[in-house]
Amino acid sequence: MSVYTPVTEAEAADWLGNYSVGALARFEPIKAGIENTNYFVTTTQGRYVLTLFERLAAEALPFYLDLMAHLARHGIPCPAPIADHADQYLQRLNGKPAALVTRLPGASLEHPQRAQCGELGALLARMHLAGRSYAAYLDNPRGQKWWRVAAREVKPFLGSEETSLLERELDLQSQHRFPDLPRGPVHADLFRDNALFEVGRISGVIDFYFAGVDCLLYDLAVCANDWCLEPDRSLDAGRVGALLAAYHAVRPFTALERAAWPVLLRAAALRFWLSRLVDFHLPRPGMLVHAHDPEHFRRILELRSGAAAPWID
Amino acid sequence: MSVYTPVTEAEAADWLGNYSVGALARFEPIKAGIENTNYFVTTTQGRYVLTLFERLAAEALPFYLDLMAHLARHGIPCPAPIADHADQYLQRLNGKPAALVTRLPGASLEHPQRAQCGELGALLARMHLAGRSYAAYLDNPRGQKWWRVAAREVKPFLGSEETSLLERELDLQSQHRFPDLPRGPVHADLFRDNALFEVGRISGVIDFYFAGVDCLLYDLAVCANDWCLEPDRSLDAGRVGALLAAYHAVRPFTALERAAWPVLLRAAALRFWLSRLVDFHLPRPGMLVHAHDPEHFRRILELRSGAAAPWID
Repeated sequence: MSVYTPVTEAEAADWLGNYSVGALARFEPIKAGIENTNYFVTTTQGRYVLTLFERLAAEALPFYLDLMAHLARHGIPCPAPIADHADQYLQRLNGKPAALVTRLPGASLEHPQRAQCGELGALLARMHLAGRSYAAYLDNPRGQKWWRVAAREVKPFLGSEETSLLERELDLQSQHRFPDLPRGPVHADLFRDNALFEVGRISGVIDFYFAGVDCLLYDLAVCANDWCLEPDRSLDAGRVGALLAAYHAVRPFTALERAAWPVLLRAAALRFWLSRLVDFHLPRPGMLVHAHDPEHFRRILELRSGAAAPWID
Repeated sequence: MSVYTPVTEAEAADWLGNYSVGALARFEPIKAGIENTNYFVTTTQGRYVLTLFERLAAEALPFYLDLMAHLARHGIPCPAPIADHADQYLQRLNGKPAALVTRLPGASLEHPQRAQCGELGALLARMHLAGRSYAAYLDNPRGQKWWRVAAREVKPFLGSEETSLLERELDLQSQHRFPDLPRGPVHADLFRDNALFEVGRISGVIDFYFAGVDCLLYDLAVCANDWCLEPDRSLDAGRVGALLAAYHAVRPFTALERAAWPVLLRAAALRFWLSRLVDFHLPRPGMLVHAHDPEHFRRILELRSGAAAPWID
């Protein structure tokens, strides 16, 4: 589990006095998540999540909190940061930067079908349209620059076949920077466990702490590589088609985006292969969660390099 | 009913394309309310209220919409304005200024008991604390200045007893301006039909379009005169005590507020007596709702002038 910074119920009750959310009724640690310490907070007013930021750069936090606030006030079902009596989203608790955000209803799906991939696609398109009026900027923190750093760190641990896959892919990606694709804030980590569903409808998108500005289509590539997999990790054309068609109906793709799709699927696979290699071979001290097996994304990257990429049916 | 400006379902569906709230699923006029045209809007994403502003001064609308947005992001359960793709809360529809706000769950209570008066008091206190960091300013639009204008307009319709009650009260109030009471944005119209409850808890405060900056205690006086009435329109000390005690537990009253309470109860009665006299004797052309009987608040004003004002038990 991932409670790095313990907070007692008394400390939480006291700290909530900075907010207009009523009195603490229930307080429990959240076991999922790797990057931050999270607690469920129930008050006489509503349900919230308390997050203590364990390793995000302090200067990046306003980008994330303001982005969530921006999307929430545009009607996107994402955690809405709660402002304190000093009108700030960012507080401190037990020595860490901390924030209180709304808790969304619903549960994530392990086996999404076409209909749910369509729900996701439509919401992503609405989120991207809403995000275009967001003025703050943060480079995708797991973009091309980070890939080079991560690749250098993990190379000593790789066999020759992996090394050559990695180098080939970095080389290909460096030839494709897509300056003319529509860009804006992207979630960049929208795996199944970061989307909530309630009676078949998408009820929330959570965990924006890998967000940054990048090609909008990159978000779809990250989703396709997690939501639309066959057991052999190839892409299911039906679910990919549903994801893209629902998105396209809200924000139509450009011809350049169609052309970029296969390369972005590979970029999204590379990014998670690299982060899993880093977590696996170079675990951070105190990291309490078992690292994911990098093999999963190595295989996805390999498959995306070899096969045609499904598009809208 | 109060639909002054008709909007067809097709017009609404088209207009919602300015927002990131999904596609229109249901659209129905709201019959309650006097000042604006309102529709319930259900989309694939959520439930909203569409308001077309019929007679509020255009320059006051940002104060109201930004106040609701401010309170909502502080965790106060009030309608949250949805920003459009140009990042604006204020839009236009069929020639009128218009806004889309979230629709809150719950229903209003006709016969609130002590516990619900306590819920209301605690929420008011949280709302007032949250409102203190709201920077915009709008004088209470139904404050002392407006009383004088309204009194002049309705005097020709009053008998001698009513005239003398009105003049006596205006005179008394002009001697009590309370410059040292805590001030801030107040709802100023928090009657029972503007609060929503769900399973015994307060789930929403709605209709902020009479809000302005005034003594915070004025909000409690408006509430007491509606929520805590006995059948003879005297105040029920039990419910008043519950309202004030729950408020006091969150934002403690000052000694000056205790002293001002009887006069503010009279001010709140005077304000609604006056507006009902205006609506009764000088109905606006096209006003579609039957005016409330002014007699109710004349009687309340008379009673508040004569009896001791209950305070916290």
